[in-house]
Order: sequence, then C-alpha cells, then structure tokens
Amino acid sequence: MMKKKETKRPVILVTNDDGIMAPGIRHLIKLMRTIGDVVVVAPDKPQSGMGHAITISTPLRFEKVVIDHEDIEYSCSGTPVDCVKIAVSKILFGKPDLLVSGINHGSNASINVIYSGTMSAAVEGAIENIPSIGFSILDYRFDADFHPADEHILSIARKVLLKGVPEKTCLNVNIPIEKKIKGVKICRQAHAYWADDYEMREDPHHKNYYWLTGEFIDDDKGKDTDQWALNKGYISIVPVQYDFTAHHAITNLKHLEE
Amino acid sequence: MMKKKETKRPVILVTNDDGIMAPGIRHLIKLMRTIGDVVVVAPDKPQSGMGHAITISTPLRFEKVVIDHEDIEYSCSGTPVDCVKIAVSKILFGKPDLLVSGINHGSNASINVIYSGTMSAAVEGAIENIPSIGFSILDYRFDADFHPADEHILSIARKVLLKGVPEKTCLNVNIPIEKKIKGVKICRQAHAYWADDYEMREDPHHKNYYWLTGEFIDDDKGKDTDQWALNKGYISIVPVQYDFTAHHAITNLKHLEE
Repeated sequence: MMKKKETKRPVILVTNDDGIMAPGIRHLIKLMRTIGDVVVVAPDKPQSGMGHAITISTPLRFEKVVIDHEDIEYSCSGTPVDCVKIAVSKILFGKPDLLVSGINHGSNASINVIYSGTMSAAVEGAIENIPSIGFSILDYRFDADFHPADEHILSIARKVLLKGVPEKTCLNVNIPIEKKIKGVKICRQAHAYWADDYEMREDPHHKNYYWLTGEFIDDDKGKDTDQWALNKGYISIVPVQYDFTAHHAITNLKHLEE
Repeated sequence: MMKKKETKRPVILVTNDDGIMAPGIRHLIKLMRTIGDVVVVAPDKPQSGMGHAITISTPLRFEKVVIDHEDIEYSCSGTPVDCVKIAVSKILFGKPDLLVSGINHGSNASINVIYSGTMSAAVEGAIENIPSIGFSILDYRFDADFHPADEHILSIARKVLLKGVPEKTCLNVNIPIEKKIKGVKICRQAHAYWADDYEMREDPHHKNYYWLTGEFIDDDKGKDTDQWALNKGYISIVPVQYDFTAHHAITNLKHLEE
C-alpha cells in the first residue's frame, strides 16, 4: 500500500471527462474542498468515451479559470489523461496526495471502464503512482442527484488519503440511483458487453451518417460483480490495474514462438 | 481457444491508427491478401494515441474508397475502435475470421499498449470475440522497412487463423528494427513507463502552448518481457486481456466496505 502522512491539508487534484462545467465535477469539488486543498484541471469541453486517449499530434493549452471563486482551477484543451499529465508536469509541478475523477454522469461499471475518460484519468494517476479514484453515478441526466452518495464519497476519499490504495491500482467507484444507498461493496468487474448498433440518418446533402447506439448485455451471474452490487442498491468499488498482459495465456501460446 | 475452420478463404478485417494511407497498413494489406479476402476499414486521418476512444457525441461517416484496386476498402471518420465496431455492424454485417491492426509506425510494447489506437482496435476485436492481432514496428519513420518481418507476420496470422487465440485475449506483436530478425518470443508486458514532460512554446499571439514529450523508462529487469525480447532482436508477442479488475487487490480493500 502507498501510504500518505496527513501532516497538513492534502492536495487533491480533481478532473473528469464531462468537462469543467459539468454538475458532477462541481459537486465533487465541493465535497473535496471539505477535506483538502483542491486543484482542478479538467477538460474545457465534454470528452466522454475518450478512453486512454492522449494528445500527441496537436499541442495542448490550459488556462486559469474562475468559476466559483473558491479553488485553483484550470481548463485544458486535452483529454482527461492529458489533464492528469499536464497537471503533474506543469501546474502542480509534482504529485497531489489524491486524484479524484468525476463524478461521471453515467455508469463506468463493467466493460464501460475501458471506454471511459473519467476512469482513464484515474488509471493515469495510478500509472503515475498517485492514489486515484474515479466516481460515476448511474444517471446520465444533467440534473442527477449526487447528494445521497456524499458521505460515502467522503468516507472513501478519507480512507484512501489515510491508507492509500494497493500498488499499481486505482478505484472505480460507481453509485446507484438510490435515495438511500445500502452500503459499499468491493467487487470485480462484471463480464458484460455492449451489443453495438448504429442508427443511420441522411444529412441534407443526401449523405448517410451513423450514431452509435446499442444494448448493454450483462450475462455474468456472479454475486461478486459491480453490476450485482449496483442492482442491489450498493455502491461498487472495483480495484483497477493497468497491466494488460493475459498472464494465464502465455503458456498457451508457445506454438507461436520461432 | 476459439477455433476457426478453414473451408474457404478467410475474411480478414484490416485497420490501424495511422490512417488508411499510411505505409504500415498498405504493407499489411498486401501481406494479408496472400492468405485471405481483405476488407479494410481504417481511419481517414491519423489517430495515434487515441487509446480505446469511441465517438459518441458526434455521428460517424464511412465511405468506400479505391486505393490500389485490389481490395474492398472503407475510410471512416472515427477512431480505430469505431472502425472495428462499424465494420462488424454496418459493413461486414458479421464478424471477420481475423482482425489485424497496423502495422503501426512506432512501438506499442510495454505501457504503450494503453495509449495505442492500433492495439485498442485489436482489443475491441477481442471484446467482440474476433481473433485479433495488433502489429507494430519500432520505427516511427514514414519509410520504415517492414519487409524483414514479412514471413513472421504471415506465420503468426496463419497460426491464429488455424488455432485462434486464448479466450478473451488478443495479441500485441512488436517488431524490432533488424535486417535479420532472430525469432519470435511470447512475453509479458514490461513494467516500464513514460517520464512525461511538455515543451512550452509561444504562439504569434503571445499565448503559451505545450507539446507532450518525455522519456521512456524501462527499469524492469525481467528476461520475459517484450522490451527484453525486442532489445535482443526478437519479435515480441504479448497476449492482452481486457478485464481491468485487480483481482489480487480485492481482499486488501475490505476496509472500504460499509
């Protein structure tokens, strides 16, 4: 476990993928302000579905912004992962005590973690050895009600500040839509997937264009998954790692060696 | 293992992240044409560093293009992952027998896999249960010489067509810059990372902008890593999985349950 001493107020870096003006990040900033000194570095526009994208072919920009006159805030032209990298390298000139990303408007449970900009920011934090948490609520609406999760979010953040997270991991926290949340469960990622589809439309110039749609299919029967916990009204926490090696498969592939 | 019967010529979907006109994909198409019926669905512009990004806030477009008069080819406005999704859903109307992505101009070994559009296309293939391989060469140059790897690339692709890949994995194949390649090694991803930096410049309007730079640090001493194999002149193959759960960490986090 990476441990942090609490000798003074911790520095908390806040980012997201819905953009710096999204209600989810504004709520998370307010909560984090009660337990630390907040620095916000977040995308200047929505960056949902950006996964672990980074900006390499164009330059990045960031600028100081004043939104609610309380914290140090920067809006950045890049992706959520860019925000973390540039925050550490050129804004904080070092690592924060905690990185929180979100609160995402929409689930990042199960397979959604791989497409999520919110979670990729937390994963980038883990890569950089920063205790990192991504928060998401299962509500896509702009006026989602985040309040029922307040005490849980603060409790998780406080515990991570005290005890850190297991080495080379970050936490994927998903919040059910409940007036009264039942509790918090540590889970594995459900083996669910998206059955993709595209809706075709015709533009005024008679050319076709396609909107990604699809159906979320969860056929994982386990009672230890994030989807199970969320369906039962619990907050799910999945520890997330970033070694993509399928270690169990290495011996099955020796026929490819030459 | 997912097995495929070879009763007729297999359908091979080819994509990449450097864009449909990049020499790497043109070379891969030529190779694949010798062992199957090729369908190309690739980005209409460079999409390096896009990770597992998908396009959800804007619609997608794709159109048939004729480049060297040999294969069925479509250029797509989206990311590499979009290309795979729309190929299966709206172009092939089903799954190909093999998906190959690349040949990427530049390494996707070690931690690079997480940022790579080339590899994310292969991972998306794995998610969709398609035998999938990403190929990359450790040479960023436009005129990289791909020929020394030809026989190895074909051999790997043929073996995957015959025997498939382990369930819920795809292959991350990296090719060293060598006139004579020593062989092929099955590896794990090295625990290496980028020490990020940004180069600041001033635009003509006296505003700062930042280019991502940085140094690749490999302090993994293992002799079973992709970096080790590549440094020794071997092609590295890492089986890649997409369950991000840090299973080993679940029991260490029970203090977060409520």
